[in-house]
Amino acid sequence: MNSLCFTSETASDGVVERDFTVGDVPGVLWSPASGPASAPLVLMGHGGGLHKKTPALAARARDAVTRQGFSVVAIDAPGHGDRPRAAEDEQVRASFREAHATGDRERFRSVSIGYALSLAERAVPEWRATLDALQELPEIGRDARIGYGGGISLGTAIGIPLTAAEPRISAAIFGGGFFVHDELLDAARRITVPVQFLLPWDDEHVDRQSCFALFDAFATTEKTLHANPGDHRTIRWIGVDEGFLARHLT
Amino acid sequence: MNSLCFTSETASDGVVERDFTVGDVPGVLWSPASGPASAPLVLMGHGGGLHKKTPALAARARDAVTRQGFSVVAIDAPGHGDRPRAAEDEQVRASFREAHATGDRERFRSVSIGYALSLAERAVPEWRATLDALQELPEIGRDARIGYGGGISLGTAIGIPLTAAEPRISAAIFGGGFFVHDELLDAARRITVPVQFLLPWDDEHVDRQSCFALFDAFATTEKTLHANPGDHRTIRWIGVDEGFLARHLT
Repeated sequence: MNSLCFTSETASDGVVERDFTVGDVPGVLWSPASGPASAPLVLMGHGGGLHKKTPALAARARDAVTRQGFSVVAIDAPGHGDRPRAAEDEQVRASFREAHATGDRERFRSVSIGYALSLAERAVPEWRATLDALQELPEIGRDARIGYGGGISLGTAIGIPLTAAEPRISAAIFGGGFFVHDELLDAARRITVPVQFLLPWDDEHVDRQSCFALFDAFATTEKTLHANPGDHRTIRWIGVDEGFLARHLT
Repeated sequence: MNSLCFTSETASDGVVERDFTVGDVPGVLWSPASGPASAPLVLMGHGGGLHKKTPALAARARDAVTRQGFSVVAIDAPGHGDRPRAAEDEQVRASFREAHATGDRERFRSVSIGYALSLAERAVPEWRATLDALQELPEIGRDARIGYGGGISLGTAIGIPLTAAEPRISAAIFGGGFFVHDELLDAARRITVPVQFLLPWDDEHVDRQSCFALFDAFATTEKTLHANPGDHRTIRWIGVDEGFLARHLT
């Protein structure tokens, strides 16, 4: 097992931010500057092309630490943030640009799906190894309740197979903004923990119906779909149940 | 203008409950036992076949009074609760029973739509007269912010044309559970105030897509769709934004 190495630490506004690595995966842990051990731990995923400290993600993380007393962890997805890009990922990015430039929607869709599958295959074991390593820390420990705090798009394309595979996750926030495929539906059918599903109502690329099929697939009956107007870049979330993770993790 | 006559008053657990009439329309007003004048006023609609003091409605009303300091008003829809049924309503109910017994879904749908239209035509002016009369009360007054607190099914079939017609309503909760028709879509297109829309995800009678079309029709961009599994009799609402009316009425 790879253990966790902290590489830097800063503190501001009651939040300690520590960069770390687990093997060659870089991550960041935001924790309350003071508080009980075994605070709930929330895993946050970033969107495609973004990284573990994307401003919106970092802001949500700091808010969860200061307002709810959670610890929050994010890691860079393969080929994202501080990680080198594999040749296959460079290839995919070239295909994306081509499909976008030529307006070939079907190719755009199939490249997106293939890329998301490939990233999820690599990211799920990385997340699980990160969890193993975090649980060795005395301030996290084995008793902390764990939730997946989402992120729409890539954060969900990775989060759904992760939550299906990982019994330590006891509640999850997912969302739309990416292409739904059969492997993802299969993974959703294995998810029995409470789910909050955030749907950008007017995504320009993704068919709404495919997101409904995904919502229908979750095996849990404790699931809520929440939609606001906008696509996944322009959406302004209003009236989301902010207490969802707190209810299930505390 | 018909003025408001109180016909009975009880008080328990910090809530004053007063029955009243405005003309021949019976209603009930729940208010805080103490508190500032001009508390926000919430209009609540009941479901088809039910009445102004249906237990679930009364419980929601009392909760809104005690937790949020609102006043809440409900009135019996035409032919419901304490009101006599007109010959045309008796006729419709007979048609309902027939369509249900014979399993004629298309007839069930058309009878439902015609009945909802007829009820809304009569109920909208009754609600507006009730508002006029309530605003004459010193404890309500002309400054109280007013919201429509919903109720799915009939409560929304009446609430949408009411909110479209009534500039005093500044936020509204609607929901699914009934058949959407063109007049309702037209009314939704005239609604510019913030809307929370509650959708029973698995309604046995009502096509989901028709509810999406209704959600799309609201002219406001400040709208949220919230869905939980279940049909409109079995649904358990989880994770709804309980602060919606408070945000817009205070």
